[in-house]
Amino acid sequence: MTPVGAVVPDDGILAIDVGGTKLAAAWVDRDGEVHDRRQVPTEPSGPGAGEELWTTLVGLLDAVCAGRSPAAVGVGCGGPMQWPAGLVSPLNLPAWRSFPLRSRLSERYPGRVVRLVNDAIAMAVGEHWRGAGRDAHGLLGIVVSTGVGGGLVLDGRIVAGPTGNAGHIGHVVVDPSGPACACGGLGCLEAIARGPAVVQWALDQGWKPTGVADGSALLDAARAGAEVAVAAFARAGEALGVAIASAAHLLELDVVAVGGGLTAAGDLLLGPARSAFARHARMDFVRDCRIVPAALGNDAGLVGAAALVAAGDRYWPAGAD
Amino acid sequence: MTPVGAVVPDDGILAIDVGGTKLAAAWVDRDGEVHDRRQVPTEPSGPGAGEELWTTLVGLLDAVCAGRSPAAVGVGCGGPMQWPAGLVSPLNLPAWRSFPLRSRLSERYPGRVVRLVNDAIAMAVGEHWRGAGRDAHGLLGIVVSTGVGGGLVLDGRIVAGPTGNAGHIGHVVVDPSGPACACGGLGCLEAIARGPAVVQWALDQGWKPTGVADGSALLDAARAGAEVAVAAFARAGEALGVAIASAAHLLELDVVAVGGGLTAAGDLLLGPARSAFARHARMDFVRDCRIVPAALGNDAGLVGAAALVAAGDRYWPAGAD
Repeated sequence: MTPVGAVVPDDGILAIDVGGTKLAAAWVDRDGEVHDRRQVPTEPSGPGAGEELWTTLVGLLDAVCAGRSPAAVGVGCGGPMQWPAGLVSPLNLPAWRSFPLRSRLSERYPGRVVRLVNDAIAMAVGEHWRGAGRDAHGLLGIVVSTGVGGGLVLDGRIVAGPTGNAGHIGHVVVDPSGPACACGGLGCLEAIARGPAVVQWALDQGWKPTGVADGSALLDAARAGAEVAVAAFARAGEALGVAIASAAHLLELDVVAVGGGLTAAGDLLLGPARSAFARHARMDFVRDCRIVPAALGNDAGLVGAAALVAAGDRYWPAGAD
Repeated sequence: MTPVGAVVPDDGILAIDVGGTKLAAAWVDRDGEVHDRRQVPTEPSGPGAGEELWTTLVGLLDAVCAGRSPAAVGVGCGGPMQWPAGLVSPLNLPAWRSFPLRSRLSERYPGRVVRLVNDAIAMAVGEHWRGAGRDAHGLLGIVVSTGVGGGLVLDGRIVAGPTGNAGHIGHVVVDPSGPACACGGLGCLEAIARGPAVVQWALDQGWKPTGVADGSALLDAARAGAEVAVAAFARAGEALGVAIASAAHLLELDVVAVGGGLTAAGDLLLGPARSAFARHARMDFVRDCRIVPAALGNDAGLVGAAALVAAGDRYWPAGAD
């Protein structure tokens, strides 16, 4: 995304995205342009490997900085976490349990502001700052992938909740007698719309993949017109639309940006989501709410992490430092 | 609520609560104590009677003020409305359609701050300032009555949305294949838990009231052990618990204060609400969220309206004046 010959300002932001399968980092300028993006896969290492993972991250950051000193550091990280303290326990990274990521980064970049949020909140901030939800009053960002995450930006500020966990659209109930969710609840959006659940539902309905049974194969089948595959994405989309209608009524949203791997399905997913939303979101004040694909793709989390520190205190809640 | 001999400070707040069946007003001091509460019923007058209703309100306010000049004016009013401009069109007051209540009050009390919000938001603010949710990080106030309304206070500020309509918990979807709602949607909380729907469900299930079929008679029947009556409140309570679980996951709520006529049912309503919440709210960060009866009763809206101006800019969103 760096135009040829572009000058990277000295006051760039070091942006970090800690996901379940990779560590990513980039140098992001004050305009939100992503430079020098690098990433490394994370190993499914067990408890005790926390320092090793930290060393891997430090190596990645040094490579991105290439001798430059960042003006500030922004981080999106998989939850759960203790926020704003920034003790992180990413579900898919057992190596880190209550790992003091924020304070470690503060030690490594002394005198620099370091801010850290849930990765889905970072995605929402990125889409608000430079993506599909610029200037939205009420933005919900949703990531539909192995799980279903979400983040909220209302009136230009993140809604983090007292421990940083607000935005969990994946655990909005869309069908109280629906399938069991990994959280222990019933009928959560995530139980229906997460990628593995969509694939499993298709298999249960008789889908016979020729190769490996995954989201990508299911999407191929749906594009080829396989009814069960189309229905599987539609069912997930409808659940998404119901949850979005609930959130829109509660928060008077105007933009919902949907990203994550499953959105490769495009209108196979978002079409049914929009139909279900139209069926359930009937109050005047939500009718114009738009459900759109996220615009920044894999960069949204990095751009949002940078925005937490690059945009002054625009997104950051007062008193959370 | 005025202690005998209490001195009403000169810098009292004029608080106003415009409901569907009554206009209420009071002199509220800086501590949130309600003095000189007065109310008049509203007639179901039609369009064209707007000035007449205004004159009635002015008479009420003059009686409350009794020659004193209020330091500021706070208003809770039934929706919908254009906010923060304060053009109100209360659903049950057809006499006012886009009536400029906020600016009329500003003209009548020149130089005074006048702030106006949806009545359910005022209730939530009242419960946060002086009621069941003091110091809550994330408070949802719910009014279960002829309709089901709601208001949010997050991190000490109201969440109003761009047009003042955020907080509509009544239109969170609790059962996508549920009953039709007056809003045009399906399976909204309000379609199941509003008083008239609870009574109708009981009648449909064979409840035979000896007199008039209303919420009060249904409550008597439930207290006397009539199974259908108990089940009717339980069904409403369960719907409430599901909607609260969704809202809690989305916003990391710590207190939900439930008021309104139907809460006379006490644990017949809130017991099933808590059970359904416990079944669906399984993430660590919502487990300690408390569902409690509202503490301020009919005064909550007045106290909250006063808090909008008495507590500085504590509750009022930046830039909304």
